[in-house]
Amino acid sequence: MNDLTISLDVHSTTPLYEQIYNYIKNEIQNGGLPFKERLPSSRKLSDYLQVSRTTVNMAYEQLVAEGYLEAVPHRGYFVCDLAGLVHLKPERRSQMKNQEADETNFEFDFSPHGVDLNSFPHNAWRKLSKNLLMEEDKYLFRLGDPQGEPRLRETIADYLHQARGVNAPPERIIVGAGNDFLLLLLCSMFGGGMRIAMESPTYRKAYDLFRNLSNEVRIVEMDESGMCVDQLEQTDAWLAYVMPSHQYPLGTVMPVKRRMQLLSWAASGAGTEKRYIIEDDYDSEFRYKGKPIPALQGYDRDDCVIYIGTFSKSIAPSIRVSYMVLPESLMDLYRQRARGISSTVSRVDQMLIAGFLNEGYYERHLNRMRAVYRGRHDALLAELKAFRGICQVSGENAGVHLLLTFTNGMTEEEAIRRAAERDVRVYGLSGYYVGDARKPFQDTVLLGYANLSEQEIHDALSRLRQAWL
Amino acid sequence: MNDLTISLDVHSTTPLYEQIYNYIKNEIQNGGLPFKERLPSSRKLSDYLQVSRTTVNMAYEQLVAEGYLEAVPHRGYFVCDLAGLVHLKPERRSQMKNQEADETNFEFDFSPHGVDLNSFPHNAWRKLSKNLLMEEDKYLFRLGDPQGEPRLRETIADYLHQARGVNAPPERIIVGAGNDFLLLLLCSMFGGGMRIAMESPTYRKAYDLFRNLSNEVRIVEMDESGMCVDQLEQTDAWLAYVMPSHQYPLGTVMPVKRRMQLLSWAASGAGTEKRYIIEDDYDSEFRYKGKPIPALQGYDRDDCVIYIGTFSKSIAPSIRVSYMVLPESLMDLYRQRARGISSTVSRVDQMLIAGFLNEGYYERHLNRMRAVYRGRHDALLAELKAFRGICQVSGENAGVHLLLTFTNGMTEEEAIRRAAERDVRVYGLSGYYVGDARKPFQDTVLLGYANLSEQEIHDALSRLRQAWL
Repeated sequence: MNDLTISLDVHSTTPLYEQIYNYIKNEIQNGGLPFKERLPSSRKLSDYLQVSRTTVNMAYEQLVAEGYLEAVPHRGYFVCDLAGLVHLKPERRSQMKNQEADETNFEFDFSPHGVDLNSFPHNAWRKLSKNLLMEEDKYLFRLGDPQGEPRLRETIADYLHQARGVNAPPERIIVGAGNDFLLLLLCSMFGGGMRIAMESPTYRKAYDLFRNLSNEVRIVEMDESGMCVDQLEQTDAWLAYVMPSHQYPLGTVMPVKRRMQLLSWAASGAGTEKRYIIEDDYDSEFRYKGKPIPALQGYDRDDCVIYIGTFSKSIAPSIRVSYMVLPESLMDLYRQRARGISSTVSRVDQMLIAGFLNEGYYERHLNRMRAVYRGRHDALLAELKAFRGICQVSGENAGVHLLLTFTNGMTEEEAIRRAAERDVRVYGLSGYYVGDARKPFQDTVLLGYANLSEQEIHDALSRLRQAWL
Repeated sequence: MNDLTISLDVHSTTPLYEQIYNYIKNEIQNGGLPFKERLPSSRKLSDYLQVSRTTVNMAYEQLVAEGYLEAVPHRGYFVCDLAGLVHLKPERRSQMKNQEADETNFEFDFSPHGVDLNSFPHNAWRKLSKNLLMEEDKYLFRLGDPQGEPRLRETIADYLHQARGVNAPPERIIVGAGNDFLLLLLCSMFGGGMRIAMESPTYRKAYDLFRNLSNEVRIVEMDESGMCVDQLEQTDAWLAYVMPSHQYPLGTVMPVKRRMQLLSWAASGAGTEKRYIIEDDYDSEFRYKGKPIPALQGYDRDDCVIYIGTFSKSIAPSIRVSYMVLPESLMDLYRQRARGISSTVSRVDQMLIAGFLNEGYYERHLNRMRAVYRGRHDALLAELKAFRGICQVSGENAGVHLLLTFTNGMTEEEAIRRAAERDVRVYGLSGYYVGDARKPFQDTVLLGYANLSEQEIHDALSRLRQAWL
């Protein structure tokens, strides 16, 4: 008993049994209680410490469960051999800087990847999270369906049908941690060797990802309606990657006529020559002019559109939940070649998103964000009138960025440099061109406005006037 | 005013402003308040409803923020054109069954993929989650580092160093949503066309995944020490995928001598012929005999081991957090070809895991699970003595499953069928063989015990005695 000079603090928020547990555990780890040492009986220790036997027993049982003590029937508790146990002592090292990936040193940053987080519905999110955590149910911690939780897929199906005109039975939806992952999954299904048509400029990550996985990318030019289908037909591509609702980075909205042409191109392949369109609908939620155009997928009568969307743009970038709707004709391939890949989104996160949609928060959030972004969009357009003589605006009908093409001889590089001198960051278009196709826009910069308030837009534009005029 | 016959419920938990908001929103959606209709002034409505003007104004402002109403200075509030707004009405459809991926109809299921969730530390998890949710900080919802949060990577580095002897600077750790995703990422780095040696039998998902992405798999035989390095040297493979701590499914623990041979094989490649070992350390946490063997990676002096581990086995399957430690020589390739792929794990989940480790919960959980699994392991081994005459036990020194090889002529198929007749599910080994290499074990079944209590093991084994003896 001499070894167990435990001083209990009855006022502590740490329960008494845990104080006893912690003390004995430390003694065992320090060697104060060596291997095979016998502990006092719970009766003796409870008398000595003036606590109930239950309290002591709880501490002992916890220590047994964790392998520190062994309970020998009719003999008592003994210290175990700790050779096989894990002991984690915090190690010291020079602290890495917790870098923000999207952090810059500019006073105003027109990043085209921005998402406004001031309007993030923290309270709703917290409430839903709390409710989920209250569910003791173990099912949340088991491995779920590789396609994603049925409840979430049903919710996404409803949303896509109503908001985007997408025909998306839950059975054909695959939930994954981000669009990049879903593209990897597609590569895994098709097994590399895809011949895929892309526009130039395009979403560079997708281009790199396809090429890194041994696929062949055919570059097809764009005109003001989007991918030139006449040119697409001249290639040997059997997949076409497009963003009809809002092309990235040009902001082009593909008109219905071109959509139909594209669908005809896909429909003319059949059997082993079947053609597919990958429709990346990444930020279709935000549109400022005219009626929303339903997704291309909704017009598909030939089972040839692979539809991809994400909550990263519409809720928050750190929400790693995207979804893909496969055509029926690809479901067998999916089951054979990709269903073995476990879901990349935790069940808790999936149920959280499902609740967010089902309880109406997403609808409210989207409508609020649309109003916020529209305000910024309008403020930016109004400020840009000052540049009427030196540049043209394009891509302004949807999304959260637009393009400025200089017509006064100022190069992209010069525009970026001059803006940077005034502590304003704008982004060049040239990095988005791929392959050696014609470059329809030269001397062009992107201005993303999702992350700047109307006041900030006003202030930043007064800097840009100094820089560019 | 006739249209606004709102009946407010002062006893409701829904705030008054929200009741007003809901009423007006519904009226607008139903067409009861048509486009361009003017709303009563907040003064009039507050008089009429006997609530404060602030309450009415809050409702109006919310409706303006969401785009239902427009505030026209000096004129009042008007109903907006809803053409562009999202309206989600729940759709009815036949409810999909919420299937548990690991659900079976057997009374006793010896799944080798089981994880015991009765011991999951719900309270700790809930506490950590709540604390995280209290942080209003927007940074949690921004896009994080594609390699994972620095704080989590530091924590993993400490853990791997102490528990597994892995040399893992945080700069070389990549966090991803599951081992499957990390293998996809590796394929993306190497760009398909890898020539990769695997054992047979092996982790079938990895085999399928490599092959689906146009890599060539060379099958190398195993002996009681693991992959036969002599045979490996005869192949043209430049990557070897192994599980030295506990081969899946055979349960072989690779002795130090064989590890050194394997490292020598890798070290003998250099420059563009550099060879790599992928060490999948998927369940190294559980080991019942002898001292824990440090990971192969800890012995690597030639910068050629790619180390992969996961929290799915040690915490819960639905925790989609795995980690990969790249050798320094692959960091440039990673930065060039895979850093563009956004993190697949949400920042909230990453910080949750970091807290779980840093606050000592993981250590306690691991030690508790080791004790629980050891109890089941010992109980199963004791029960298996009854079969001494008809089968041999192997793979029992680590992990959460073992193998039974029948020596009395009973086939794998027959053993499975007879067990199933008694409502017990056991798993055949043959499905894990790949290629056409020699099959060292025939007539063999896997018994996983993670998901069965000692009592259940006792009851199930009495069934198996009836089935097999």
